Amino acid sequence: MTVPLSPGATIGILGGGQLGRMLSVAASRLGFMTHVFEPGAAPPAGQVAHRVTTAGYDDTAALAAFAGSVDVITYEFENIPTAALDTLEAHRPIRPGREALRVSQDRLTEKRFLRDLGLATAPYAAVDDAEGLHAALDEIGTPAILKTRRFGYDGKGQARITSRDDAAAALDDMAGAPAILEGFVAFSHEVSVIAARGSDGQVACFDPGENVHEGGILRTTAVPARLAGSQRMDAVLLAGRILNALDYVGVMGVELFVTPKGLIVNEIAPRVHNSGHWTQNGCAVDQFEQHIRAVTGWPLGDGTRHSDVVMENLIGADMDRVPELAREPRAALHLYGKAEVKPGRKMGHVNRIVQDG
Amino acid sequence: MTVPLSPGATIGILGGGQLGRMLSVAASRLGFMTHVFEPGAAPPAGQVAHRVTTAGYDDTAALAAFAGSVDVITYEFENIPTAALDTLEAHRPIRPGREALRVSQDRLTEKRFLRDLGLATAPYAAVDDAEGLHAALDEIGTPAILKTRRFGYDGKGQARITSRDDAAAALDDMAGAPAILEGFVAFSHEVSVIAARGSDGQVACFDPGENVHEGGILRTTAVPARLAGSQRMDAVLLAGRILNALDYVGVMGVELFVTPKGLIVNEIAPRVHNSGHWTQNGCAVDQFEQHIRAVTGWPLGDGTRHSDVVMENLIGADMDRVPELAREPRAALHLYGKAEVKPGRKMGHVNRIVQDG
Repeated sequence: MTVPLSPGATIGILGGGQLGRMLSVAASRLGFMTHVFEPGAAPPAGQVAHRVTTAGYDDTAALAAFAGSVDVITYEFENIPTAALDTLEAHRPIRPGREALRVSQDRLTEKRFLRDLGLATAPYAAVDDAEGLHAALDEIGTPAILKTRRFGYDGKGQARITSRDDAAAALDDMAGAPAILEGFVAFSHEVSVIAARGSDGQVACFDPGENVHEGGILRTTAVPARLAGSQRMDAVLLAGRILNALDYVGVMGVELFVTPKGLIVNEIAPRVHNSGHWTQNGCAVDQFEQHIRAVTGWPLGDGTRHSDVVMENLIGADMDRVPELAREPRAALHLYGKAEVKPGRKMGHVNRIVQDG
Repeated sequence: MTVPLSPGATIGILGGGQLGRMLSVAASRLGFMTHVFEPGAAPPAGQVAHRVTTAGYDDTAALAAFAGSVDVITYEFENIPTAALDTLEAHRPIRPGREALRVSQDRLTEKRFLRDLGLATAPYAAVDDAEGLHAALDEIGTPAILKTRRFGYDGKGQARITSRDDAAAALDDMAGAPAILEGFVAFSHEVSVIAARGSDGQVACFDPGENVHEGGILRTTAVPARLAGSQRMDAVLLAGRILNALDYVGVMGVELFVTPKGLIVNEIAPRVHNSGHWTQNGCAVDQFEQHIRAVTGWPLGDGTRHSDVVMENLIGADMDRVPELAREPRAALHLYGKAEVKPGRKMGHVNRIVQDG
């Protein structure tokens, strides 16, 4: 058993974006200090963290000093360079652990891991070159989607293949990076389970949320999701199996396609997840605090949903709607303190309490 | 009409305790930066604020630099020296305004203000010396309580007078400071209204909470409070009258005694208030965000209560109970990041969601 960290201990957070920011606020609520490591200047998390280190993931000295100043290390994104993780782990524990990062950093490894667990995924095949792509298209057919195996997010590093004519252009988009071809799944909607596993092995899941994407970016998440009772239980159980198999400690986002034949795992993210932001206004303990509890060895909190909530992301020019959103009844605004508005940039979100639970 | 501050603007907060800390977190939720001014080292608010100035209220240069770096100034406590306010106000607006501070910094001025509004208060008389105390006791009788007119909080600067024999000792406790003698009120319980007034004059009140004190310190606040329907409306209306009369902008705590003959105003605090902490887990917009909205010229938010909540303060050695509280269902912990536990020191609070609203 992990000895729980006491209030006053310092949590190191890799990444200073909005997820690091909301993790930092949740940590402070439990009396913890936070220290954010982020290569970019003036990160959103830096506005609310106790300390910030501005340095690159190749700066071994900065990484070591950062690790030495904290009691445990966690992260807001999964694409942390392996060498940086090696340096950090020599000093302090990283939670969630390396195995979860190894699996989720590579779409192909992730798919294989899920299949080995007996879970359903979209059809897929590895693609390293033009020949491999054609073989994969023979197997999977079109339409399909070609994705880089590593470093993709929010629809980046992806190319849709409607017919064989698109194949060459799609491969060009990968810029020589190893890729994976995924077949389309005929799903009615997407849900996600925000699951948590404590250092004692206890698993707790928030109520599944129903996601709507636009242009590859999450637009809204609504709870409760449309799910039959048995599917709701399936969703929670399969999320639990994933966390157990990885000996996972922390919060994970598990995206699922709902099909007439059952649930298909789209992808997993070993961190707090955009589709879990509704928990801030729907539960006594939200996903950010749940993650902090797990990585500090605390017992998991009670994530029972007390209200129906619809979360809407505020993206780019949605910021122009803030004055109007500020007047809306039963709406809780969460802005990320980003200085510059850019198209496609997540600037904040609003949680609408639709009905008491 | 005040032009609302845009996200990215900086709010100056005088005082770095737990109220400043929770104000800072609420401000960040709306995308604001915060700058905390606090004489003491390593203030709790400093862990979550963007900037901290450590300087005394007599440091005119530090005050001017602080004021120059922010867009609006607010505070977590009412006993700010007048000279400091003069310096600050030469640079930036202070909200809530000076009139609310003038009234609430002096118990006698406050009582007179309330009486002039036609509101009921405990019987009181000014006491400057032994002769005055005896005259006051003739008028009010015993038991009564002698309080310094200024700088009292959490039961400090107060002496109970059960009989005339206690008078001399009570006066000694005042150490020569101007005082006020207050008669006891036969009340069944105490409630408080957390009221907000925006820069547009709109008033919104959170549902009244019922307070239990121990040793002069708030122990618990429960919502809903035991109040007849007409009393509930009376409570909200009289709070609104106080805020209107002061042309108030921000959140105010109004403590009321409930008696068979009606509501009696105990005291007002021109700031967020311990008895409003329940709003963090009972409403879409809590008292801290409501205050930030008011002082930045935003519209007030929706403070509708979605759940029944009991807030319990964690005082001194209550911190030993944190491991057990962390395991309690439907309990939301809020710790203040104070390094040292002291008897009587407010270390945190827990909001228990008793029932969905």
